[in-house]
Amino acid sequence: MKFVIQRDLLLESLQHVMKAVSPRVAVPILTGIKIEALPTGIKLTGSDSDISIESFIPKEEDGLVHVENIETGSIVVQAKYFPEIIRKLPLKTVEISTDDQYQMTIVSGGSEFHLNGQDAMEYPQLPVLHTDNSFEVKHDIFKEMIKQTVFAVSTVETRPILTGVNMKIDNGEMAFVATDSHRLASRSIKLDSDFVHIQFDNIVIPGKSLAELNKIIDDTDDAVTISVADNQILFQTKNLYFLSRLLDGKYPETNRLIPAESKTSVKVKTKTLLQAIDRASLLAKENRNNVVKLETKDNFLQISSNTPEVGQVTEEVVTEEINGESLKISFSAKYMIDALRIVEEEYVMVHFTGAMRPFVLYPENNHDILQLILPVRTY
Amino acid sequence: MKFVIQRDLLLESLQHVMKAVSPRVAVPILTGIKIEALPTGIKLTGSDSDISIESFIPKEEDGLVHVENIETGSIVVQAKYFPEIIRKLPLKTVEISTDDQYQMTIVSGGSEFHLNGQDAMEYPQLPVLHTDNSFEVKHDIFKEMIKQTVFAVSTVETRPILTGVNMKIDNGEMAFVATDSHRLASRSIKLDSDFVHIQFDNIVIPGKSLAELNKIIDDTDDAVTISVADNQILFQTKNLYFLSRLLDGKYPETNRLIPAESKTSVKVKTKTLLQAIDRASLLAKENRNNVVKLETKDNFLQISSNTPEVGQVTEEVVTEEINGESLKISFSAKYMIDALRIVEEEYVMVHFTGAMRPFVLYPENNHDILQLILPVRTY
Repeated sequence: MKFVIQRDLLLESLQHVMKAVSPRVAVPILTGIKIEALPTGIKLTGSDSDISIESFIPKEEDGLVHVENIETGSIVVQAKYFPEIIRKLPLKTVEISTDDQYQMTIVSGGSEFHLNGQDAMEYPQLPVLHTDNSFEVKHDIFKEMIKQTVFAVSTVETRPILTGVNMKIDNGEMAFVATDSHRLASRSIKLDSDFVHIQFDNIVIPGKSLAELNKIIDDTDDAVTISVADNQILFQTKNLYFLSRLLDGKYPETNRLIPAESKTSVKVKTKTLLQAIDRASLLAKENRNNVVKLETKDNFLQISSNTPEVGQVTEEVVTEEINGESLKISFSAKYMIDALRIVEEEYVMVHFTGAMRPFVLYPENNHDILQLILPVRTY
Repeated sequence: MKFVIQRDLLLESLQHVMKAVSPRVAVPILTGIKIEALPTGIKLTGSDSDISIESFIPKEEDGLVHVENIETGSIVVQAKYFPEIIRKLPLKTVEISTDDQYQMTIVSGGSEFHLNGQDAMEYPQLPVLHTDNSFEVKHDIFKEMIKQTVFAVSTVETRPILTGVNMKIDNGEMAFVATDSHRLASRSIKLDSDFVHIQFDNIVIPGKSLAELNKIIDDTDDAVTISVADNQILFQTKNLYFLSRLLDGKYPETNRLIPAESKTSVKVKTKTLLQAIDRASLLAKENRNNVVKLETKDNFLQISSNTPEVGQVTEEVVTEEINGESLKISFSAKYMIDALRIVEEEYVMVHFTGAMRPFVLYPENNHDILQLILPVRTY
């Protein structure tokens, strides 16, 4: 194997596949990165067996030459050293070659590295997905869906199914739902009309997979092709192949959690409310769950928290509108801050159904994004 | 006590005094910050008894009003909460007041905090230094002196005196020396002629104190006034008062460590050498001490490192000049990187006196900065 490649492109691809590489895996060869020189370009693979990522650097793209002097072949090198070496090389191009002892030579300017590698034949084959269940989503919308839901997955393993995001597709509408049983986040979009035949209701994608995927998909990628088969889900862009296992088990029915009616409705500036709750939570850190109180007043919300040994805080947040019953409610400041952070609109709507019932919030003009939070009993 | 103050100025002063506050101190009240409202402005104090910092915010400065409506008084508030509250307040000004129960009220816009405080009378008095041993150094030169030496202090407590920087003044010349017994860094400057009578040889300032001081002195400070008395050293700028204890004990004589002659001299681009050693050290991380080898060749240096289980690296660094005997030497890449990082000139001079003797390096045109590194025996 031999090739000369643009250092920055190689480094970017390495950073992508490194997202799947873990130093703690049962199969030792998976601590390495597989490098394949193909006639059409260079393919890198990283995997921890839950997630597998392939990144391809084409020989040429848009008239630009990325890779030269390719002699085909493959090798596995240690992920602990290889990316850091590439990052620190002195020139913009690097020559990589291997010998039949699985030793890799890296040359750039006055710098020459020899790294012990392993036979690429020993690297596990990635499964090939056979499925007709493929559909496409625009990359920016898809990244939004991840960002608006994945933070709400459970981080504890007591109910493993809740560590994933539930993907549902029905009647041309695709929804992501995540809940840790104290709060819920959901986002839905209309799919392109080509995909109205696609239907899923119990696909649960590990939150970690989506979080990593979100970091890799970039703005040069136009669409993400999603395919589901057996226990795997595949996300593909032009030069990226991201495969994740799915979570086993039945995702709970979440629709009935969302209250159909509301007793108190508030319209308020998103940022003002977020900052007031953030401040009110400063003194609530010692509390279990970082709980703050909210009380509706004539034309403002009063948010407060009291930790006797430290002190007490009261925040007044002027509202645009308050309708319905007056209300006193307590909730986790952290959940409320998480929910408000993903609202990009100037105004947020909050709908309460009494002090003991879950409440929902959404951006004023976008009901496809919905957040639900369970209150905490303190009154 | 009561005053209205510019939030950003208060926050900046708080960040300064917080450098002296530690959550783990023997005297509980020192986990707090003392705030004094004086007729002339607001004084903040933080201390862990090793370091004490006072920061003063004048009522007015350069025609700008910083503090208004001052009613004098004082209080101690918990450092864990107060700075974070100030940082997150909604408006640019904040009103602070106290009642006779030592409760502090902080009001800014719709935000109102009540914080439990303590009687400022219980806060320890800072010692007042009585000394004629005062002298001045320009703030930028003084920051350079710290940066160029403090990294070389020992981080282990086996010889506590080596955790400090030795300040020597003799014949109008001031020097900082730091060593951890494996490497040494020194920097000297000429003092202003007003201070030729000042003389010190065994002042040892804790490295931690200088590192914190370096973060606080900013570019608006013109000169630093330094005073020594008993076991304390005081650094003063216009609005800052930084007091540190000195280390007890006799600092070792370091002058005789510096070789008088050299057998091999090299002139080389600082950055090129630094980057080559940084790369060579990538594979040496598993080694004890991160050791690399250097070998002089006709017109270049060969730097290499070999970790059999990982691989091997060779770097060729073209030199401007090599004079004297040919040489093979091994040393800690970390010490060499630390030393080269503080050389800001394009070229660095390295003088060797054989493979087993300490070697020195300095910027081509500034012999007031000197670094010494002990080699490691590997050949």
